[in-house]
Amino acid sequence: MSSERALGSGSKYPPKEPGVLRLYGMRFCPYVKRTRLVLEHKNIPYETVNINLIDKPDWYLQKINCLGLVPSIETDNDVIFDSVIVNEYIDSVYPGEKLIPNDGRRAAKDKMLLEIWSKVVTQYYKLFYPSGETNEVVPNMLSALDRVENELARRDTTFFGGDKPMMIDFNIWPHMERIVHFDVLVPGFTLDASRFKRLTSWIDEMNKVPAVKKTKLQLDSFKLFMITVKNGKMDCDAGLEE
Amino acid sequence: MSSERALGSGSKYPPKEPGVLRLYGMRFCPYVKRTRLVLEHKNIPYETVNINLIDKPDWYLQKINCLGLVPSIETDNDVIFDSVIVNEYIDSVYPGEKLIPNDGRRAAKDKMLLEIWSKVVTQYYKLFYPSGETNEVVPNMLSALDRVENELARRDTTFFGGDKPMMIDFNIWPHMERIVHFDVLVPGFTLDASRFKRLTSWIDEMNKVPAVKKTKLQLDSFKLFMITVKNGKMDCDAGLEE
Repeated sequence: MSSERALGSGSKYPPKEPGVLRLYGMRFCPYVKRTRLVLEHKNIPYETVNINLIDKPDWYLQKINCLGLVPSIETDNDVIFDSVIVNEYIDSVYPGEKLIPNDGRRAAKDKMLLEIWSKVVTQYYKLFYPSGETNEVVPNMLSALDRVENELARRDTTFFGGDKPMMIDFNIWPHMERIVHFDVLVPGFTLDASRFKRLTSWIDEMNKVPAVKKTKLQLDSFKLFMITVKNGKMDCDAGLEE
Repeated sequence: MSSERALGSGSKYPPKEPGVLRLYGMRFCPYVKRTRLVLEHKNIPYETVNINLIDKPDWYLQKINCLGLVPSIETDNDVIFDSVIVNEYIDSVYPGEKLIPNDGRRAAKDKMLLEIWSKVVTQYYKLFYPSGETNEVVPNMLSALDRVENELARRDTTFFGGDKPMMIDFNIWPHMERIVHFDVLVPGFTLDASRFKRLTSWIDEMNKVPAVKKTKLQLDSFKLFMITVKNGKMDCDAGLEE
């Protein structure tokens, strides 16, 4: 697939070459980025097929993901969807250093942290799709973020996963990266480095990780995309040349 | 703890005896039942402390679960919350036959099924807390249930887990058990056995499982509870004698 353009209704299923791992995505979707980060970090080759999320292809709903979400991955034998499930699958099935702790206690604690993180994400999307209570969203998001800051302090490690990034870091990163650039949505927004000391230093460290660098948010296109979202006409191809 | 009464704000943390596994629950919570089923099925002894979910104890939020949800479990060393995470932890840390497939592909497929199931659950709660579109909720719930019926047909097994109940069966069961008794909410509701042939036979088989029998929904109390929910004053102690 040489084009990044999103496939919509009326498109045909692009035939897949055997042996090639395919990632179904959307260029600005943070959940898709969770999987891109893991694929890049583990050096697993893959191709991307982007899906138009407001005008989904029938073949995607029928053949790949009945829930119509991204990411999904397709191998020669399997179709797996949901970012967390896809990433667990990749970690379990593909060779290389494991990103999910083997220890049941540590694994549970990372999953609990992701639940706590999901409360930050819930607030984040309220700003995407405001429904009246906009004034409270930023404070609520920061309060939810306090819990994550505290957890990193409790762990007392550079990354959530320890001295190197693990699955929990890659699953948290994509929304965090967008929150850093929240001034796109909320003029003047900055993340207070004294309130979020640990998180600020984690962000600095994550920005040095090759997989993070390689998948860095294209800010110009993201801004164009956000304008289309705010206008109620999400353009999955925002910023692409004709 | 000899009382089933829910602890609310103003209560004190009930000191825990070392070596005893504690389950924090609420008598009518299907998520808590997911964990009860697994504890019963694996014959793991535990005590229950019920939490008043509309008047939560401060100690619960501070010490056990900052998100304030049930179930949580407390061991001598760990506090784990979220039904799916708790159940994975129990399956991983306690001895006995494993309920989660070791194989990464099978595990991923069960997790995807639970995501599909969650769409049924979303519709279920819309009837609990109606917000206008009540007429569409039952058809939407049944359409979501079709996907689950199809998945059981695709697997062509008695249980979702194969020829015996596995974690996926126990995680699905508690909401299904309530849907069977949906006439409490929607007078006249029945599950059409010809439309849901596989699910109907799965329900019959599940009803024979000792852990399912032991945790069977107390219908009289549940009806009393549902009336309080519909009236906007959830009574976690509904049906208990003074």
